[in-house]
Amino acid sequence: MATKSMVATLGIPLTPKTFHVAVVGVGLVGAEVIRQLQALDAIHFRLVALSSSKSLLFNPDGLTPPRSYSQIPAAPWNWKAELAASKRKADLQFLLRELPELRERPRQEVVLIDNTSSLKVAELYASFLREGIHVVTPNKKAFSGDLDWYEEILEAALHAGVRLLNEATVGAGLPVISTLKDLIATGDQVTKIEGVFSGTMSYIFNEFSTGREGGPSFSSVVRVAREKGYTEPHPADDLNGVDVARKLTILSRLIPSLCSALPAGYESVSTRSLIPPELEGVASGDEFIRRLPDFDAQFDKLRQEAIREGHVLRYVGVVDVETGTIKADLEKYPVTHPFATALGGSDNIIMIHTARYGARPLVIQGAGAGAAVTAMGVMSDLLKLS
Amino acid sequence: MATKSMVATLGIPLTPKTFHVAVVGVGLVGAEVIRQLQALDAIHFRLVALSSSKSLLFNPDGLTPPRSYSQIPAAPWNWKAELAASKRKADLQFLLRELPELRERPRQEVVLIDNTSSLKVAELYASFLREGIHVVTPNKKAFSGDLDWYEEILEAALHAGVRLLNEATVGAGLPVISTLKDLIATGDQVTKIEGVFSGTMSYIFNEFSTGREGGPSFSSVVRVAREKGYTEPHPADDLNGVDVARKLTILSRLIPSLCSALPAGYESVSTRSLIPPELEGVASGDEFIRRLPDFDAQFDKLRQEAIREGHVLRYVGVVDVETGTIKADLEKYPVTHPFATALGGSDNIIMIHTARYGARPLVIQGAGAGAAVTAMGVMSDLLKLS
Repeated sequence: MATKSMVATLGIPLTPKTFHVAVVGVGLVGAEVIRQLQALDAIHFRLVALSSSKSLLFNPDGLTPPRSYSQIPAAPWNWKAELAASKRKADLQFLLRELPELRERPRQEVVLIDNTSSLKVAELYASFLREGIHVVTPNKKAFSGDLDWYEEILEAALHAGVRLLNEATVGAGLPVISTLKDLIATGDQVTKIEGVFSGTMSYIFNEFSTGREGGPSFSSVVRVAREKGYTEPHPADDLNGVDVARKLTILSRLIPSLCSALPAGYESVSTRSLIPPELEGVASGDEFIRRLPDFDAQFDKLRQEAIREGHVLRYVGVVDVETGTIKADLEKYPVTHPFATALGGSDNIIMIHTARYGARPLVIQGAGAGAAVTAMGVMSDLLKLS
Repeated sequence: MATKSMVATLGIPLTPKTFHVAVVGVGLVGAEVIRQLQALDAIHFRLVALSSSKSLLFNPDGLTPPRSYSQIPAAPWNWKAELAASKRKADLQFLLRELPELRERPRQEVVLIDNTSSLKVAELYASFLREGIHVVTPNKKAFSGDLDWYEEILEAALHAGVRLLNEATVGAGLPVISTLKDLIATGDQVTKIEGVFSGTMSYIFNEFSTGREGGPSFSSVVRVAREKGYTEPHPADDLNGVDVARKLTILSRLIPSLCSALPAGYESVSTRSLIPPELEGVASGDEFIRRLPDFDAQFDKLRQEAIREGHVLRYVGVVDVETGTIKADLEKYPVTHPFATALGGSDNIIMIHTARYGARPLVIQGAGAGAAVTAMGVMSDLLKLS
């Protein structure tokens, strides 16, 4: 009884629809999505395709035996070995031909999960959607590029009557996009969104700028962050602010008055890069790290200025709906502000100001990066489909 | 194009299903639900019934003309006048007979929205669910009472293949229940939930205990809270901790290992009442407020003790999954803790500790009471149905 109750309580679907799932991208997030999908123990999700950038597994009847056939838990499925041994080359066009056939019988649905950050995969969303295939992804590219492209994708979903879900593109598993959609869909007026959207930037400034005198140099904080795997291999890919600009684009486009505000996507966002001009174009991450200490004095000066005012530095994203300002910038906040007091590690924090919430915003905070929580964002979208 | 895009982006349903909506309870929350429902401008929701505790409006074809018939926006519908003038008496049994007929044609669904806090309405959920009617509600009664009753209701929903959604029972419009469900459904292990769950208790202790010397007396804070309408007419109904115990019951029952932990519901929660024993049973709220200053010294002593330790007092709810502890209690937190630094007004804050989120919890914060945000929680559930 408890089990049944749990099923009903958790809203695990009661419908007999079968969802055929194709997973593209088997890196850290992809592997975790596969793990969570296996653990889900819901027979209405059937993994039919698995693709790395090199090879592909495909079986319309499911890559693993249906749960109902195996009463005892099987040994964990060694998909890595199977994928490595596959003779089938990775081929998105093949999936685009084969997947639609799986939905020809009634109550059969097909979902593409794109765990890559590839532009090439994103460019095929519209084609998959037009074929009646749902798309779920943590890949920001399609949502933060040119507006025309974005609208083409939305139109494709709309006309085919399928969903395109991207909760994990902002705040990973944190319920940021779904909450913003709920606020807007139920008629609230969003006035401002302000937050620390990059786990990497969060870590760097939580360590670098505490509001107290002293502390490590900027370059040493970036070096340690890189060693811990918190940055991209080339730290400039975090320090350029593009990740934050992409997330702001994704959120802005959900707000009615801003849905057409960024014609060139993230490139239309006013973005402050923290890359010293002299290091622009340095191709090697190692060289970048080696030369970064030359600029420590500049960052230290900013930190000192902040301390004198009782402030800390935080790299934030701001969407000010009233003024239409959308910017990714290094800002100062009082040491008593939640961006100073409540953050730690590589936390994200997102404050949503609305008419209903009045002077005190709705706040969502927690790890905004990492494979397990990103995969959770993907999986929660998958559960929403059913 | 932008409009269509928004529709797809917001996930406003693409299905041609019609949802017949029956609204029971037209107090502050109910009125706001009706307002938000009217503003939703989604033709697939059709308001067919509206009931106060006295009278009822019912029209299977919809109480207002379908949007498609009226190209120009009509004057706001004066439902209050219409309901007051209705000759039909409030009659839940009538709804239980009539509503099921609306779903006899294909793709017709029926939803009961219960905006009351009535036990009598809650006692009929199982009957409505068995008839294939979805139930959406901010009413905590059915979810925080006896376990047998709760399981009967879940079974009814499960067998009829309909949903029972109660996002607004905890944290009003804050995405607490949906997030907890997502965490669990995707396989995360919840280890602890800790939070300020009562807007009233939040206001009282944010004002009373700031960590600094001095400040207003406990009784004066409660008096002002009552004058501002933040408390129930009888403040003892907030100070007894039952509201927090009910919310903890609702959350605990979503956690697999605790789903049967509270056989008597909120009465099984270890709850500290802040009502001085001498004032137990004082029937009048006015008398209660008049006599409360007699106990200021006791509360002041607690506040002083906290200050000496560098702490503040907060009335919190804790669900410790590992130890199985579920308690509503007055606790001390360091002045640097988010419960001390980040809260203001009548904010709720909920920290969810899980295996995936590790040492730093997922945090959700914002207004946890009020008609507009409570109605939003109801409306977001309604949108989830479609």
